[in-house]
Amino acid sequence: MIFGKVMGTVVSTQKSDGVQGRRYLLVQACRPNGDLLHECHIAVDLVGSGHGEMVLLSQGSSARQTQDTYQKAVDCVIMGIVDLVEEKGQFLYQK
Amino acid sequence: MIFGKVMGTVVSTQKSDGVQGRRYLLVQACRPNGDLLHECHIAVDLVGSGHGEMVLLSQGSSARQTQDTYQKAVDCVIMGIVDLVEEKGQFLYQK
Amino acid sequence: MIFGKVMGTVVSTQKSDGVQGRRYLLVQACRPNGDLLHECHIAVDLVGSGHGEMVLLSQGSSARQTQDTYQKAVDCVIMGIVDLVEEKGQFLYQK
Amino acid sequence: MIFGKVMGTVVSTQKSDGVQGRRYLLVQACRPNGDLLHECHIAVDLVGSGHGEMVLLSQGSSARQTQDTYQKAVDCVIMGIVDLVEEKGQFLYQK
Amino acid sequence: MIFGKVMGTVVSTQKSDGVQGRRYLLVQACRPNGDLLHECHIAVDLVGSGHGEMVLLSQGSSARQTQDTYQKAVDCVIMGIVDLVEEKGQFLYQK
Repeated sequence: MIFGKVMGTVVSTQKSDGVQGRRYLLVQACRPNGDLLHECHIAVDLVGSGHGEMVLLSQGSSARQTQDTYQKAVDCVIMGIVDLVEEKGQFLYQK
Repeated sequence: MIFGKVMGTVVSTQKSDGVQGRRYLLVQACRPNGDLLHECHIAVDLVGSGHGEMVLLSQGSSARQTQDTYQKAVDCVIMGIVDLVEEKGQFLYQK
Repeated sequence: MIFGKVMGTVVSTQKSDGVQGRRYLLVQACRPNGDLLHECHIAVDLVGSGHGEMVLLSQGSSARQTQDTYQKAVDCVIMGIVDLVEEKGQFLYQK
Repeated sequence: MIFGKVMGTVVSTQKSDGVQGRRYLLVQACRPNGDLLHECHIAVDLVGSGHGEMVLLSQGSSARQTQDTYQKAVDCVIMGIVDLVEEKGQFLYQK
Repeated sequence: MIFGKVMGTVVSTQKSDGVQGRRYLLVQACRPNGDLLHECHIAVDLVGSGHGEMVLLSQGSSARQTQDTYQKAVDCVIMGIVDLVEEKGQFLYQK
């Protein structure tokens, strides 16, 4: 998985993915300490993420291993909200 | 998923993918505000996208999770047309 | 899919892929107008591509969705020969 | 697979992956001699890795081919601890 | 597939992949003429590759389409030894 930060919302009324009742969020990849990287993803939110939160993105076929995305044409989901990232007893990031 | 903009059409009469009645579109990756990136993809259009529209690309095995692409040798589809991208109440992009 | 140009042939007598009667071609990624990029792929040719032709590469598990590559250890196939690439009524590439 | 070094721990209480009793570790990609690269991954630890150890990361659908991750929404696991990396009889890395 | 050169051996006694009796080799990506690129992979050797040989790497789920790697947590295999790479009647590489 990779780290990302929730930056906004994506609205798409014409979709062929078949996902019901889940938001599409704009997520920008980030470093373990929260510093933003350039790369952006649009991910189905499975955990009720809020703006600015650091999240875990799961990609590819793994993104379809949930009840909401099973056999759907999505390749990226937010599968966890990060509470903290620890390195050698120090917190690189804390929610 | 990633953002892209529909730039043109790709014609290929000798194909072994078995996809019927769907266009292959030239899609250039873009930023959330629509600024073009360098990377290009050829994607099967599932939603009737028009030239210049911002779309959502789904890649890999997820591109085969639709009626039109099931068990076909395609690895990229346009699965949604973007209506708007919102960040902190502001519109980064609007159709 | 991505664009590529057929640059040559790859011979490998010791292989464990089980693909029968198909050539392995050296394909260099290219831009929609045919300009070569740096990246190279070795792809199973499913459509009888010739030297210098622009082709469509399908990668990953999608490369196995054909009769010739079903359940084979290959991750890249040439699944189409490009006839033309059109942008706003102009031809970026024509065979 | 790629090489990585275990740098820390990631805590996420709201997760939708369904993985039980396994830690999420922060792993930084590295060269065969252990020199760190920029890229970071969050991986499910299957082998009891310790801080600073060089490990093997398996990604994508291959990350789900274990008892702990079968049909789970994870796309990266630590599947081995590296004991040594040898090149021409010399050790590039030794645990 | 991509080209690589066998550079060494990787020893890992604690593994959770379940692969039996196959070596893990250090493979460095290379150009069609054998010039080394920066990127390294650790691949299961299926064809008895020797040090310095140019090989074909198959990645992702395709790496599991062999008897030795079926349903194993590996995402990269050496599936062929390259004998020669030809471009316009000239040999870019010959074993």
